Amino acid sequence: MLSYSSLKFYGDSMPFGNNSYKSAKTLGYLNSQQALADYAVLIRSLKQNLSSDSSPVVVFGGSYGGMLAAWFRLKYPHIAIGAVASSAPILQFDKITPWSSFYDAVSQDFKDASLNCYKVIKGSWAELDALSTHDDGLIEVSKLFRTCKALHSVYSARDWLWEAFVYTAMVNYPTEANFMMPLPAYPVEEMCKIIDGLPKGASKLSKAFAAASLYYNYTQTEKCFNLEGGTDSHGLHGWDWQACTEMVMPMTCSNESMFPPSSFSYKEFSQDCKKQYGVKPRPHWITTEFGGYRIEQVLKRFGSNMIFSNGMQDPWSRGGVLKNISSSIVALVTQKGAHHVDFRSETKNDPDWLIMQRKQEVAIIEKWLEEYYKDLKQN
Amino acid sequence: MLSYSSLKFYGDSMPFGNNSYKSAKTLGYLNSQQALADYAVLIRSLKQNLSSDSSPVVVFGGSYGGMLAAWFRLKYPHIAIGAVASSAPILQFDKITPWSSFYDAVSQDFKDASLNCYKVIKGSWAELDALSTHDDGLIEVSKLFRTCKALHSVYSARDWLWEAFVYTAMVNYPTEANFMMPLPAYPVEEMCKIIDGLPKGASKLSKAFAAASLYYNYTQTEKCFNLEGGTDSHGLHGWDWQACTEMVMPMTCSNESMFPPSSFSYKEFSQDCKKQYGVKPRPHWITTEFGGYRIEQVLKRFGSNMIFSNGMQDPWSRGGVLKNISSSIVALVTQKGAHHVDFRSETKNDPDWLIMQRKQEVAIIEKWLEEYYKDLKQN
Repeated sequence: MLSYSSLKFYGDSMPFGNNSYKSAKTLGYLNSQQALADYAVLIRSLKQNLSSDSSPVVVFGGSYGGMLAAWFRLKYPHIAIGAVASSAPILQFDKITPWSSFYDAVSQDFKDASLNCYKVIKGSWAELDALSTHDDGLIEVSKLFRTCKALHSVYSARDWLWEAFVYTAMVNYPTEANFMMPLPAYPVEEMCKIIDGLPKGASKLSKAFAAASLYYNYTQTEKCFNLEGGTDSHGLHGWDWQACTEMVMPMTCSNESMFPPSSFSYKEFSQDCKKQYGVKPRPHWITTEFGGYRIEQVLKRFGSNMIFSNGMQDPWSRGGVLKNISSSIVALVTQKGAHHVDFRSETKNDPDWLIMQRKQEVAIIEKWLEEYYKDLKQN
Repeated sequence: MLSYSSLKFYGDSMPFGNNSYKSAKTLGYLNSQQALADYAVLIRSLKQNLSSDSSPVVVFGGSYGGMLAAWFRLKYPHIAIGAVASSAPILQFDKITPWSSFYDAVSQDFKDASLNCYKVIKGSWAELDALSTHDDGLIEVSKLFRTCKALHSVYSARDWLWEAFVYTAMVNYPTEANFMMPLPAYPVEEMCKIIDGLPKGASKLSKAFAAASLYYNYTQTEKCFNLEGGTDSHGLHGWDWQACTEMVMPMTCSNESMFPPSSFSYKEFSQDCKKQYGVKPRPHWITTEFGGYRIEQVLKRFGSNMIFSNGMQDPWSRGGVLKNISSSIVALVTQKGAHHVDFRSETKNDPDWLIMQRKQEVAIIEKWLEEYYKDLKQN
């Protein structure tokens, strides 16, 4: 299982202890190639210690871990006989996938739930902007957003809403979940029910706030919200570094999205990275090292035994492999699936399509194993 | 064309100028993964600058360059549509190929030319050893070997002979050549003719010397030989570093070889590397990074478009891929071929088997290109 928590620099695995994040010198080891090489050494060593040199290994991963799983099979076919890459946006780099697709996909989730809901959220940003020009704007926003402390910046409210909508789209799971935050089944629908249920006269911003509260306070235990100065709730402290070096995923908001239109400036991004880490991002590196352009043509005649699974509710799916490439490099796409939903634990309430998807994955892996053992006997 | 001369640290390409070889810190960049990544960046950049993004690239290489070509296709299939790896001993690592196979192959070349020749060389080492115990041994050896200056060590004579036999086997080409040294066609046969032509009463050592002189003095311009303190004539200054880090190729001499039997001690080798560069060799790294064990099973269902060409006269062939792995990963083996003879320039005297081999390679590459363009149109 290729995941953050088993990787250097994430979770408890700090190669330089408390100094691991100190500088580019130590952080230099935090990159995808090093991660893959670490896995190669680890798996080989494990197999040797367990006296199971000829046991087949299949790698699994979701999200960034899914990218690593896919890349691991491509770069280390002698160590992993196959890979299951769930919600792996390996095409979200460079100019392969349109830069607006991610936020367009988030918006589509909300639009599909309710057109009104989409329109309310889309209109809420202008109301927030308008408030920010008032003398008492910050006080009003603080009151509206039930902040524990008075806000220093309207941008905090904006980011707070933004995060709620993006992550809720990602985790628009068919059953109750606690991935980023505890949430009900199909939380996008629930958010839109809240928005659609509020009086017509209420402001769009207040409706957006009410919807976002579902994300931050589904358990109804919060009396007030900390919009500023909180610690990063997602534990991805290393991702900023990776984004500033190799994992450059330019994103924009189109006019059709429910977010304020925005463009991507490599120059500004690069300046920020220089300031924060003293490094310059390499926007073409991932596609140079791992490919991506014309992936169908390249992998049609190269490689085998890969599953790319994606749920179309997940905005990351737009940067994923959504079509079969060959007889053994296949895409499993579910319309109602969200961010690596197939890798969540089974529940009693799992819908049929999810049960079916997992069964398909198991059947394909069984075929890989069968083939492997057959080949092994022949040698 | 993947070769030494186009690589960092070899030829004129010194990344840190005169300091490139100064320490492990600068030499750290001299490794095969870095070389492959350099090529990836270079090829991509060349194609972009030439506005030929969709032009197919085929990589070629011989010897170490052949290993790089094979590995490049495996690791960067999105950049090279195929690879021709000539005399690429990618299986000469770890315990994949028997450690004695290299010197056994050298010996086989001489045995095939003349059994007497093989026996004379095999017996010459003991005579040299016997001389080294004499009081005037060094003077006698210096005289016998026509050295320009008196020798400091008998080992110099041993190494001098050793090199002549090994390289002559490698370059046992069907036409006159000037790869390491100017040499006649089929130089192993010529060496053996010299040995077999000398009077029965002459010592084995003097015969071995006469044979080796063909290698060092085919043009008959040398009046005396410099056996000690010469500069490395092969220009592979970086190879020692690579051998002490990743390119660990253990070699031994079996009782059946024409060389004095010897074993390989990782401990001693490691101590030498520690002393010379302050580093410890990683004998399992290449097989971890690039595979090699059970290569047929792995590549039977993964990868495509590779030619492994080998000439069986070349002792490196024993660590090469000598059997077809799949319909598009093929081995071209010639019995009379030597070290990447297919990559030498055409000559009027090329034998039919060599002309045929080159034609086969061209035909296979043409098929790759045809397929590539067909696929390109379909997308």
